[in-house]
Amino acid sequence: MPEISNRAVAMPESPIRKLVPLADAAKRRGVKVYHLNIGQPDLATPQQGLDALRNIDRKVLEYSPSDGYRSLREKLVGYYDQYQIKLTPEDIIITTGGSEAVLFAFMSCLNPGDEIIVPEPAYANYMAFAISAGAVIRTVSTSIEEGFALPKVERFEELINERTRGILICNPNNPTGYLYTRKEMNRIRDMVKKYDLFLFSDEVYREFIYTGSPYISACHLEGIEQNVVLIDSVSKRYSECGIRIGALITKNKVLRDAVMKFCQARLSPPLIGQIVAEASIDAPRSYMIHTYDEYIERRNCLIDGLNKIPGVYSPIPMGAFYTVARLPVDDSDRFCAWCLSEFSYEGETVMLAPASGFYTDPSKGRNEVRIAYVLNKHDLRRALYILGRALEAYPGRTE
Amino acid sequence: MPEISNRAVAMPESPIRKLVPLADAAKRRGVKVYHLNIGQPDLATPQQGLDALRNIDRKVLEYSPSDGYRSLREKLVGYYDQYQIKLTPEDIIITTGGSEAVLFAFMSCLNPGDEIIVPEPAYANYMAFAISAGAVIRTVSTSIEEGFALPKVERFEELINERTRGILICNPNNPTGYLYTRKEMNRIRDMVKKYDLFLFSDEVYREFIYTGSPYISACHLEGIEQNVVLIDSVSKRYSECGIRIGALITKNKVLRDAVMKFCQARLSPPLIGQIVAEASIDAPRSYMIHTYDEYIERRNCLIDGLNKIPGVYSPIPMGAFYTVARLPVDDSDRFCAWCLSEFSYEGETVMLAPASGFYTDPSKGRNEVRIAYVLNKHDLRRALYILGRALEAYPGRTE
Repeated sequence: MPEISNRAVAMPESPIRKLVPLADAAKRRGVKVYHLNIGQPDLATPQQGLDALRNIDRKVLEYSPSDGYRSLREKLVGYYDQYQIKLTPEDIIITTGGSEAVLFAFMSCLNPGDEIIVPEPAYANYMAFAISAGAVIRTVSTSIEEGFALPKVERFEELINERTRGILICNPNNPTGYLYTRKEMNRIRDMVKKYDLFLFSDEVYREFIYTGSPYISACHLEGIEQNVVLIDSVSKRYSECGIRIGALITKNKVLRDAVMKFCQARLSPPLIGQIVAEASIDAPRSYMIHTYDEYIERRNCLIDGLNKIPGVYSPIPMGAFYTVARLPVDDSDRFCAWCLSEFSYEGETVMLAPASGFYTDPSKGRNEVRIAYVLNKHDLRRALYILGRALEAYPGRTE
Repeated sequence: MPEISNRAVAMPESPIRKLVPLADAAKRRGVKVYHLNIGQPDLATPQQGLDALRNIDRKVLEYSPSDGYRSLREKLVGYYDQYQIKLTPEDIIITTGGSEAVLFAFMSCLNPGDEIIVPEPAYANYMAFAISAGAVIRTVSTSIEEGFALPKVERFEELINERTRGILICNPNNPTGYLYTRKEMNRIRDMVKKYDLFLFSDEVYREFIYTGSPYISACHLEGIEQNVVLIDSVSKRYSECGIRIGALITKNKVLRDAVMKFCQARLSPPLIGQIVAEASIDAPRSYMIHTYDEYIERRNCLIDGLNKIPGVYSPIPMGAFYTVARLPVDDSDRFCAWCLSEFSYEGETVMLAPASGFYTDPSKGRNEVRIAYVLNKHDLRRALYILGRALEAYPGRTE
């Protein structure tokens, strides 16, 4: 039997994935599991998107252009304009989810052995896409004590060498909910300029900023227009993760031409998803306000609730719909598994994402978990109560 | 400005892509272009698929499982059973088109520098996916004179070395329409077994076999079950290329687990496409018969027509909906460009795919083109007539 590739061996396995069989077993035992582990919002997709789906009147579901329909790209120009991001349709390449945008960005920019610097904790799949491209992720760690703020420039500069090709940020951040300040974004800009790096900026959560703080996009930074690669997706903002529509956006024409070669090889992004996404951009202001208000309330409910549990600490996330919280446990991988396999309270339990999956350094985040607030407030309150009971009962409790 | 990757530079640019601006310019001049260059069928998607689309009654278009819905995989088991391919749902991983199945197969099986052997002419994007994985495609060439039959085993063995990890076939073949015989498939099986190679088999055209010859799938070959990776797609058989639903199928559990890591990184295949694909499997026999009969007639129309044009030769394709034909021209890249930029007959012209895009050896296929028979017979006849006039007028004619 021929062997699988070294790359496949190196691909990370998410600690959440290891918990899935435990959650399935719990459900088979009749235990109700509150999923605080996932980024799948329960909010409805905009009616405009659902209507567009129902009204598709085509006889042939054919290929679309490799860079996506021009009508969608034109409409996105108007969408970004609301955020003072000035684009033309040519700057936008439609991808199969934000995932493909990350993969194609790495494939197009990074040679095997090239390095990019990523503040961690970070979205685990960046690592998978870097491994796919043979690239190396170097991390600067941020800490819960400092609210996951951007580390000092010196910490980045310690890592910069002749193989360093870029910096990757996620803003607002998954998993921490942190939002970079203007000062921090300017520091990133200066580094990118000084060392002529790519700046990969994943900004799929821009709709979800709760503090009144300004949203500073990588596209707002002057003087590095040719270095910026914006990663985007309609998944979160319209609660339509399943349609697999994202975008890779850059003013760098040479890079766009390179990315297009990868796009042409895979022929086209999903046709139907593009139709839904295009219609969803027409969602009324009331949809966005309702969604926003809902997350504001859930966030308050979650963060208040967490900080009331003895021994638990969560900073206040400024954006996205996650927080990284510290628990009074020996090992959050073990605690999360225990919740699913050995604990239940009145027939219910919680599933959390161990933070170990978001750090490359195995010593970091051992007592942290990521909690998504994508459940309604009623369920969220109940889940918090159960989490409190679980922490009381957990044999590996540390405080 | 930071540089793009060497991999992006190495990615092939299809010669068809270079013709697209010429075709667009011709259309702007008011010239009608018959597209014999593309693999996008004009036939309708099954009504069952279109109805399923209209009847989607979901409020949230959410992520689906990374390996695709189980209901789709279960239904595919029944589909493959018709072809004496015995599978379980676990053997099937749903991918974003057959394209992603090829990419993930290469990513999971091949290390940078590893080699696979591919008979050429071959589908150009295999090369792109190999470059993405850092792998090397070695080719054994087949010739129009021998009807593109599989070369002798010795020709493969000349290329086999310690870096050789697999053989890739497309059967029925794009671009040649060739169908491997049982004898040829057995020769492949013996090589795969002897050298413990992966056998990547792209069989997306299995519905389109016109000669009554048996379809021998790689999955029918005994003794190499752990080596076979079947690449599949619903695009061609249900004329739904735009939904981006394919599959990677293997009995090799270790390989499936490896592929799943790449699947998990990109979260999920398209949700709506899976719903359409699942319903399309219910297309009645009459749909498949109508489609089949239509291609039979188009094929006869095309091949008869081509062989009647002085100096033109096309073998009779046994399957798929393409043929590679030899034209009496100095250089088919030049001829195809000339048809679009300098020639028209009664305000019409043809667009063909130069065969150079299907060969790695630049000396091969210089006077060959790939012609798809995805147009209706009326248009096909007219296009053939115009091709004949173009060949009469072309200044680089060789005979």
